Amino acid sequence: MENQIILDGNLVSKNVKDSLIPRVEKLKEQGVTPCLATILVGDDPSSETYVRMKGNACARLGIDSRRIHLSEETTTEELLKTIHDLNEDTAVHGILLQHPVPSQIDERAAFEAIHIDKDVDGVTSLGFGQTTFGFGRYPSCTPAAILEIIDAYDLEVEGKHAVVIGRSPILGKPVSMMLLNRNATVTTCHSKTQNLPEIVRQADIIVAAVGKPNFIQGDWLKEGAVVLDAGYNKGNIGDVDYESCLPKSSAITPVPGGVGPVTISMLLKHTVDSAEETVKK
Amino acid sequence: MENQIILDGNLVSKNVKDSLIPRVEKLKEQGVTPCLATILVGDDPSSETYVRMKGNACARLGIDSRRIHLSEETTTEELLKTIHDLNEDTAVHGILLQHPVPSQIDERAAFEAIHIDKDVDGVTSLGFGQTTFGFGRYPSCTPAAILEIIDAYDLEVEGKHAVVIGRSPILGKPVSMMLLNRNATVTTCHSKTQNLPEIVRQADIIVAAVGKPNFIQGDWLKEGAVVLDAGYNKGNIGDVDYESCLPKSSAITPVPGGVGPVTISMLLKHTVDSAEETVKK
Repeated sequence: MENQIILDGNLVSKNVKDSLIPRVEKLKEQGVTPCLATILVGDDPSSETYVRMKGNACARLGIDSRRIHLSEETTTEELLKTIHDLNEDTAVHGILLQHPVPSQIDERAAFEAIHIDKDVDGVTSLGFGQTTFGFGRYPSCTPAAILEIIDAYDLEVEGKHAVVIGRSPILGKPVSMMLLNRNATVTTCHSKTQNLPEIVRQADIIVAAVGKPNFIQGDWLKEGAVVLDAGYNKGNIGDVDYESCLPKSSAITPVPGGVGPVTISMLLKHTVDSAEETVKK
Repeated sequence: MENQIILDGNLVSKNVKDSLIPRVEKLKEQGVTPCLATILVGDDPSSETYVRMKGNACARLGIDSRRIHLSEETTTEELLKTIHDLNEDTAVHGILLQHPVPSQIDERAAFEAIHIDKDVDGVTSLGFGQTTFGFGRYPSCTPAAILEIIDAYDLEVEGKHAVVIGRSPILGKPVSMMLLNRNATVTTCHSKTQNLPEIVRQADIIVAAVGKPNFIQGDWLKEGAVVLDAGYNKGNIGDVDYESCLPKSSAITPVPGGVGPVTISMLLKHTVDSAEETVKK
């Protein structure tokens, strides 16, 4: 396609972060340093990497991060106690529980225990409901990143047909509801969907959030579709077969350098938003 | 169509109510009478009728109803106080705030004030989020009624393409998420949707929740579609043009006598569920 746009997540991310710098400075003048608490349970190496990346991203903006590392044997009760303590701690503005947790833990109960005011990662059912009903403060970060990219490039959503592939609580479901709130007609697909290529072929906007490497094929696309790849698979490979989809799309996110970096920026933004809320009070 | 099913909401409703009779009896033996508190604000005659109908439906099953009627001039604060008192009242198992409330009231704030344990009408963002994430106890009553009808007639949902027309917090959004959880591929449409007839034509299951009398036309339907009319318009007219849709559908709800009566039964069921929860505690 002519005039094709490669949606540059690194650039969008940089702009979001730049906008946070004066806000963090102002907070510090008021005696408040935004602080994100990250909880890692167990020894999964990728999870350790993600948590470290998030902590480093905080540090570069002058945001404190408090890294809590619990053992592989942690019980649900112990994790809940940790979360409750962080809920009470007025120095902490955001709480991130790194997914996944070891199998003996009730992960949903742990997510739900995060106080709505500190749910900067957008994982609680309450936060999801508020976002869907149009008054949520901290939507799930990957959906928020997708909307941020859409807005940064001034892509039209209203009246468009968006097809979301995936229905997870932190990605497929919230991004479906957020696009619906922006007046898209939204189709949510998943592993039980029949004739997926036929449905994708109708999409003006495609959000891939299925967790299958290079799954979405170019011949599934309508000419000129906008392709947003939120997939993350081993080896830093997206859900979209970039080579075949690139020629058909009017705008597309690469992997890496697409949705991923913006997701972390949204987490930082929400943490700063939350810190500002405490100053207002 | 041959073997066409007229989905009889009165029959489904009766079966739900019959199943509640022994449960109410058992609760009474345990010293607990299920109790639904209904709050009506102002003097809208249709709202008065709805609240009276709900109260009467309770009475016929031996469920207490406590009817609270506040004046047209009620403030948000006064309404919130009423709701908080009902939240605290252990004799009350469910709270229903009749929509709409007078314009000076923040209706959303009032809905959100209902404790999740008593949100038997399924109006809170928390209840919606929990339902969407698969562990809600009291989904919004009209979506619950639609699923009840689907189950009563053993209609297949998995892998089907469901098109929901409407995106309200108590109907379009929750029924979309509930059908998604049943493994339907779900498209949610609304006033900004382009080519609505073309999208409806793909549907195996259509949920009409748009609030426009006789809006959905027979020539929009795929042969053999299942049509669920959750519309309620003045004069007891549905959103579906029944005359033209009847010949095309494999199963269809009439109005009246379709989704409406089951909705009230779901409210009663949720109230009994809630009363049973208090006995368990």
